[in-house]
Amino acid sequence: MARVAYVDGHYSDLGRTTVPVEDRGLQFADSVYEVIALVAGRLIDLELHLARLSRSREGLGLPAPMTDAGLRVVLDEVLRRNRLRDGLLYLQVTRGQAPRNHAFPARPRASLMVTLRAWSPFSSSLASGVAVVSGDDLRWQRCDLKTTGLLPNVLAKQHAHEAGAFECWMVRDGVVTEGSSSNAWIVRKGSVYTHPLCEHVLGGITREVILELADANDIEIVERGFSLSEAGTADEAFLTSTSSFVVPVVNFDGTDVGTGTPGPVTCRIRELYRDHVYGPAS
Amino acid sequence: MARVAYVDGHYSDLGRTTVPVEDRGLQFADSVYEVIALVAGRLIDLELHLARLSRSREGLGLPAPMTDAGLRVVLDEVLRRNRLRDGLLYLQVTRGQAPRNHAFPARPRASLMVTLRAWSPFSSSLASGVAVVSGDDLRWQRCDLKTTGLLPNVLAKQHAHEAGAFECWMVRDGVVTEGSSSNAWIVRKGSVYTHPLCEHVLGGITREVILELADANDIEIVERGFSLSEAGTADEAFLTSTSSFVVPVVNFDGTDVGTGTPGPVTCRIRELYRDHVYGPAS
Repeated sequence: MARVAYVDGHYSDLGRTTVPVEDRGLQFADSVYEVIALVAGRLIDLELHLARLSRSREGLGLPAPMTDAGLRVVLDEVLRRNRLRDGLLYLQVTRGQAPRNHAFPARPRASLMVTLRAWSPFSSSLASGVAVVSGDDLRWQRCDLKTTGLLPNVLAKQHAHEAGAFECWMVRDGVVTEGSSSNAWIVRKGSVYTHPLCEHVLGGITREVILELADANDIEIVERGFSLSEAGTADEAFLTSTSSFVVPVVNFDGTDVGTGTPGPVTCRIRELYRDHVYGPAS
Repeated sequence: MARVAYVDGHYSDLGRTTVPVEDRGLQFADSVYEVIALVAGRLIDLELHLARLSRSREGLGLPAPMTDAGLRVVLDEVLRRNRLRDGLLYLQVTRGQAPRNHAFPARPRASLMVTLRAWSPFSSSLASGVAVVSGDDLRWQRCDLKTTGLLPNVLAKQHAHEAGAFECWMVRDGVVTEGSSSNAWIVRKGSVYTHPLCEHVLGGITREVILELADANDIEIVERGFSLSEAGTADEAFLTSTSSFVVPVVNFDGTDVGTGTPGPVTCRIRELYRDHVYGPAS
């Protein structure tokens, strides 16, 4: 079935959907984005994603392309036209089309792009765990904003793939900040560790939800950065993202993590998150 | 007159020229670019720009969209169709259209976009000098690659404009690296200083040519970073770029540089560069 995308008021076949060559998203990475999981016809944590989109925009002085109510109408229409039950929704807001100049246009008009693709939540191929490698965190100083300036993330992910791994955990000043497209977690002696929010880490929505779920279920999470050696000697490790939810990390930089199989704390958190997405099993 | 742009084999009116919504340049800033000055019908230092484009591409494992000979044919055709004598040529190479995934596509096909706009070389409004302000260098660790991950540069330039200045000189670890879209230079006791090439600085083509011109004309240039206080107490300062050539900086962070007028070393270098562009005055 043809996939339908949206750009600035128009719905069209994805393969024929385009943006102006002088869009500032293309020429300057002057744009922000969100990826939202569609599960059984429902956009998971839509409110949290829209709130983060606004924070990213405002951090860059980027105007809203429309009201949140208008945005919801567009998203609903994209879902309706694509007739998908499970998918990944992608939305991007750029500072629009303007003659190329670094400074903001005098009267910027934000552009909105939305695409959707089929995707299987809780992929069984990930449930048994994945390998992660480490790499230098080459990114800029405002990783808390979800911008499309993703080239360092692209290079980190490519580094992982070439090493036969699923993800790269990035290291800044000796501390693991996060993965190229996920947050990083380890478990040591029953406590769970992940980097605190700061300008070097993106506040993942899945991360945010897991902190709440852990708190409600007496799982201790400590927001503290950890080193490569702490990761390498952890009892368990996992990563979280909108597109992979909670994935056990069973190998780190070529060495088994713990027993080399998904650990009990990881599996517990994965189950809690599954319940969050689907509702508790009856 | 309508401006003509080029994208992947097609020439079209700039206002109607588009790229696919899933181009990796738009979604990941997975692309590199060049800006080349067109003066009196000639592309200035085209060879140097094409060589840098190749270096940037290769640094990212990004394939060439075509041979350099093919690229020259496209550039000539863009010039011919636009009938401009003086302009700024912009070319961008992206890792092309692909379903959104961070890692490189299995068979990436690079895309090429070219635009051209009218522009006046050696603008008289810049000859009398400009103001510059300083700001934190927020960029990533591979500023030597000329990528479109320009959001920190955009924010720095906007910071300058809001302060009534022409440019922002960015500071990393106490040292001025460069401007948001230019290289930074100061003159102290007859010697000229600019940051050495490294991963925190883009090797400007104008910078490269000036180093050669200075060497041939017994002007001492020292490739060494300088601090904010050295910039603030310099005898002279200037900036260089493809689009502004050599511009005196007469005010830095609100304080006059030297006499508050273009200094003799700056003017000498500007004249040498003008001769490089136009050929020596007869």
